[in-house]
Amino acid sequence: MISKNQISRIRSLHQKKYRDELNLFIAEGEKVVSELISSDIKIHSIYATEQFDNLMMSRFDDVTAIGKLSNYQIIKSSNRVEIIKEEELKKISALTTPQGVLAVAEMPKPLLVSEINTNQLFLVLDEIKDPGNLGTIIRIADWFGFQDVVCSENSADAFSPKVVQAAMGSLFRINILYTDLSSFLKEVAADEKLPVYGSLLDAENIYKAKLKNRGCIVIGNESKGISVALLPFITDKISIPSFTKGKIDSLNAAMAAAIVCSEFRRRG
Amino acid sequence: MISKNQISRIRSLHQKKYRDELNLFIAEGEKVVSELISSDIKIHSIYATEQFDNLMMSRFDDVTAIGKLSNYQIIKSSNRVEIIKEEELKKISALTTPQGVLAVAEMPKPLLVSEINTNQLFLVLDEIKDPGNLGTIIRIADWFGFQDVVCSENSADAFSPKVVQAAMGSLFRINILYTDLSSFLKEVAADEKLPVYGSLLDAENIYKAKLKNRGCIVIGNESKGISVALLPFITDKISIPSFTKGKIDSLNAAMAAAIVCSEFRRRG
Repeated sequence: MISKNQISRIRSLHQKKYRDELNLFIAEGEKVVSELISSDIKIHSIYATEQFDNLMMSRFDDVTAIGKLSNYQIIKSSNRVEIIKEEELKKISALTTPQGVLAVAEMPKPLLVSEINTNQLFLVLDEIKDPGNLGTIIRIADWFGFQDVVCSENSADAFSPKVVQAAMGSLFRINILYTDLSSFLKEVAADEKLPVYGSLLDAENIYKAKLKNRGCIVIGNESKGISVALLPFITDKISIPSFTKGKIDSLNAAMAAAIVCSEFRRRG
Repeated sequence: MISKNQISRIRSLHQKKYRDELNLFIAEGEKVVSELISSDIKIHSIYATEQFDNLMMSRFDDVTAIGKLSNYQIIKSSNRVEIIKEEELKKISALTTPQGVLAVAEMPKPLLVSEINTNQLFLVLDEIKDPGNLGTIIRIADWFGFQDVVCSENSADAFSPKVVQAAMGSLFRINILYTDLSSFLKEVAADEKLPVYGSLLDAENIYKAKLKNRGCIVIGNESKGISVALLPFITDKISIPSFTKGKIDSLNAAMAAAIVCSEFRRRG
């Protein structure tokens, strides 16, 4: 049984304003919640249907852990799992079809500019507006072993329910920072040896360009590309050549990110 | 003014059953409709708001065509453009926020197995269920100059409104065929020299694998990967290596397609 107060508190987390105020976010479904409870992020509470609870109580985190409590069992033993009905789950879920479980977790500490590992490659996202794209890009960053993702302040919010679902657990392994990109890139540019790669149309063919394994890769907005204000900071313009004779004008931002990240990692 | 009959006829095209029956589909928004009317696909009718009509009537297809009628103007001169109100557009649109125009067009002839150009690379999609993924993959195919896309019969329908919108015009430049993939690949395999590439986990690193510029590339379902029934037909197993120490279990199907297509084209 879940109270009206609880319902409205959890529902408020669908909105950025309240996520910031309460410093909490929600994650849903077996896959994402399983990734969440095996991450370092603190779980506030879990709302599960009986069916989901049965599934999780019968499962061990890995074969070597049989006999040991799973993370889910530990959370349950500290009274942070509430068994609720399907209809109750519908009231707090941000999904059209709820998936058996919703977890409320504490927001991880945001990455600080000073903490960014500039000895590695990292991503800079300039106004990625679509939550699905942002989630997908976070998943790509994770796949290709990028640790830090810097987003412009007008990008989609990484802890909105749609991004959390699209990132499928990768969000919990990536450090994220929202900041003003002009100031950020000005600061970054102070390190003269740090390349700032920008994915643009009509730039150097990425397959032939010199790519280092250090620096930042700027991915532009879905329809406008990289902001004019950021162009002066791009030291290396790269582009994914089209093989279709110029009829198609742009690749989806997440696709471009996937191809660019793949090409950087291929070179090693 | 649009009649009740027209509304229910256009709305019926949101469903595959009626698209097949009437041999028509819908496309919406400036970008997609502009691509549609500059393609070879036959336009049945266009429903536009006054604002959209004004925009299109003042526009020429390209700078060299000033003074010549644009495709839109030609369609309008044959009385196939109907000016409707925003509220009427809402009634026929498949979008949450209609975008000024909806076109009804004839389905292009499906590609035949015998017409597939096996001297080039082509894509084979095994149960891509998500319309957004299918649209994105069609866009990737277009970007990388793949002409033919073969889909399993249980894939999302390429002419559903969501796929049409996600493909952003690329759908009108790609040949699509729905067929039983087991039979299809059996037939294809008769050409012993035709490689069948399959994107799988734990296969040969695609960056190091031998890739030819001929053959088919099989992309598997979003959660299940390539069907067990199709595995015997895969001659070359390839995989995109992860750089994150095995914590992430799979890439989104459209992402995998983007990276694989990019790598094939990079090799030339």
